[in-house]
Amino acid sequence: MTFTPDLSQQRFAILGTGAIGGFYGARLQQAGYDVHFLLRGDYDHVRQHGFTVESVDGDFVLPDVKAYHQVEAMPPCDVVIVALKSTQNHRLPELLSSVLHPDSIVVLLQNGLDEEAAIAQILPNHTILGGMCFICSNKVGPGQIRHLDYKAIVLGEYAPGYKPMGKTAAMQQVATAFSTAGIPISLSDDLFLDRWKKLIWNIPFNGLSVVLNAQTDEMMANPAIRVLARQLMDEVAAIAAAYNRTISEDYIQQIINHTDQMKPYLTSMKLDYDHQRPLEIEAIFGNPLRAAERVQVTAPSIQMLYQQLQFLDQRNRTIRGAQ
Amino acid sequence: MTFTPDLSQQRFAILGTGAIGGFYGARLQQAGYDVHFLLRGDYDHVRQHGFTVESVDGDFVLPDVKAYHQVEAMPPCDVVIVALKSTQNHRLPELLSSVLHPDSIVVLLQNGLDEEAAIAQILPNHTILGGMCFICSNKVGPGQIRHLDYKAIVLGEYAPGYKPMGKTAAMQQVATAFSTAGIPISLSDDLFLDRWKKLIWNIPFNGLSVVLNAQTDEMMANPAIRVLARQLMDEVAAIAAAYNRTISEDYIQQIINHTDQMKPYLTSMKLDYDHQRPLEIEAIFGNPLRAAERVQVTAPSIQMLYQQLQFLDQRNRTIRGAQ
Repeated sequence: MTFTPDLSQQRFAILGTGAIGGFYGARLQQAGYDVHFLLRGDYDHVRQHGFTVESVDGDFVLPDVKAYHQVEAMPPCDVVIVALKSTQNHRLPELLSSVLHPDSIVVLLQNGLDEEAAIAQILPNHTILGGMCFICSNKVGPGQIRHLDYKAIVLGEYAPGYKPMGKTAAMQQVATAFSTAGIPISLSDDLFLDRWKKLIWNIPFNGLSVVLNAQTDEMMANPAIRVLARQLMDEVAAIAAAYNRTISEDYIQQIINHTDQMKPYLTSMKLDYDHQRPLEIEAIFGNPLRAAERVQVTAPSIQMLYQQLQFLDQRNRTIRGAQ
Repeated sequence: MTFTPDLSQQRFAILGTGAIGGFYGARLQQAGYDVHFLLRGDYDHVRQHGFTVESVDGDFVLPDVKAYHQVEAMPPCDVVIVALKSTQNHRLPELLSSVLHPDSIVVLLQNGLDEEAAIAQILPNHTILGGMCFICSNKVGPGQIRHLDYKAIVLGEYAPGYKPMGKTAAMQQVATAFSTAGIPISLSDDLFLDRWKKLIWNIPFNGLSVVLNAQTDEMMANPAIRVLARQLMDEVAAIAAAYNRTISEDYIQQIINHTDQMKPYLTSMKLDYDHQRPLEIEAIFGNPLRAAERVQVTAPSIQMLYQQLQFLDQRNRTIRGAQ
């Protein structure tokens, strides 16, 4: 006799049902979990028609979805996945209070740094995990997600001061669910280190793609930008080193080689910019620079990129405001 | 009895008849000087119709212009004004050899640094002057120049190593001609210092206007860009200081105030970029950075702006090439 766990008894909330939250949430529901989705503009459509996922792993449709427009209507959930854009994180105190029970685990699937710390300030008694998503997916219409490539998640647990936590029970629990849903997941002993490792890519390529209006392949083909990207990576590594996190030359070379081999790719920040959405510059640039300041490390190239992005983001928001 | 000099006996060559060379050359001819213009695309039009100058000082037409398509056809001239874009300076050895006599004075009306030194390498026995033009003018059609604002020139004499030369006879001679043509001209005791003072504005605003696709007023209205522009100015001043040239805090404040009060303005580099013309990044960025290297001064913000501009310029040339 085989023991079959009742997956539906583990209840997930997805706060922010876009390209990331929508894709992972749909995969969890498809695998049998009880998933509750918070939606905004897509609410009516998803309530009537559910999700359509076009995926390199095979297309699928979920006609029946537990969709919510008001967070107050959602039930308390065991695992609360935060997949909002980080520019919306000011809404978290209100959103989280509605969907938590005392033992809920919060999983932050966002880019950038220090956003787990901000959540821990609101929720000092909850377990907070951070996930770095390596995925290429877009929301292409209401309730419509296109999953183009990759899907793995690196998951770690947050503790005050980003103390390395090793592999915890909460991480195992969430990893089991994602694995069951066919998502490759690896556990990070040290969330902070892995956040910096993700920034090694995000800082140069998200930032420069917006400032230079460029795809990754164009940037990699230009000698001056290769030097600049490397310089930005070295500055990221230097800040991490001041926190005793070592990012090896091998890792940096891997990232460069990987980027050389990628298909021409518009970064998520560039897509946000082109659609006149607010840019995640505080999570990806502002917070790392403030972390650098706390340990008296200078990062002049990151600083300058941040200044340029602040200008472009502010103008972009003004244009949107004027429409 | 009043002595009336025969102005026509002083012969000028204009190499590069665009917004700068066309305007100043037309004013010199209007004042009675014998001016010979080298033209490329506009040659046929100017030969037939001459110049039309719309100017804040009053519009005027010069129907008869000594226009040349081939430099070999030009006579030797007493004053040879180089007003090409500095991206064309590789043509100077060929162009200059045709229009010089042993006592000709060369006047370089270009932005940037170290281009006088390059000419001195070709012409070690000629007097070389450098002029910084403070003018807002555009070429708006064949033989058509629109002069919008300002027109003053600061003129200095080059000596090997940019040794300060004080006010020389050659400077006085050229200044007299420009003054006669109604162009305010001031003499620089130290060409190198004045080149750096011009770069204090050109480096931040020419560079950032291209990278940020922005006018001066938008940049000045943004706090992050004000800080970045100031940082770029401080790096320029630090390089100059390593060559014992002092750019005072007062001067920098004046430049900032002046830029605050300017009408919304597209820089010349931005206009070049928008018209897919090659950018003058070697004269304005590359040469100052190489000067910094020689005295072991680092200028990380200028360096990064240079890297970004190299990318944008190269892509722009590729686009033009593909048309």
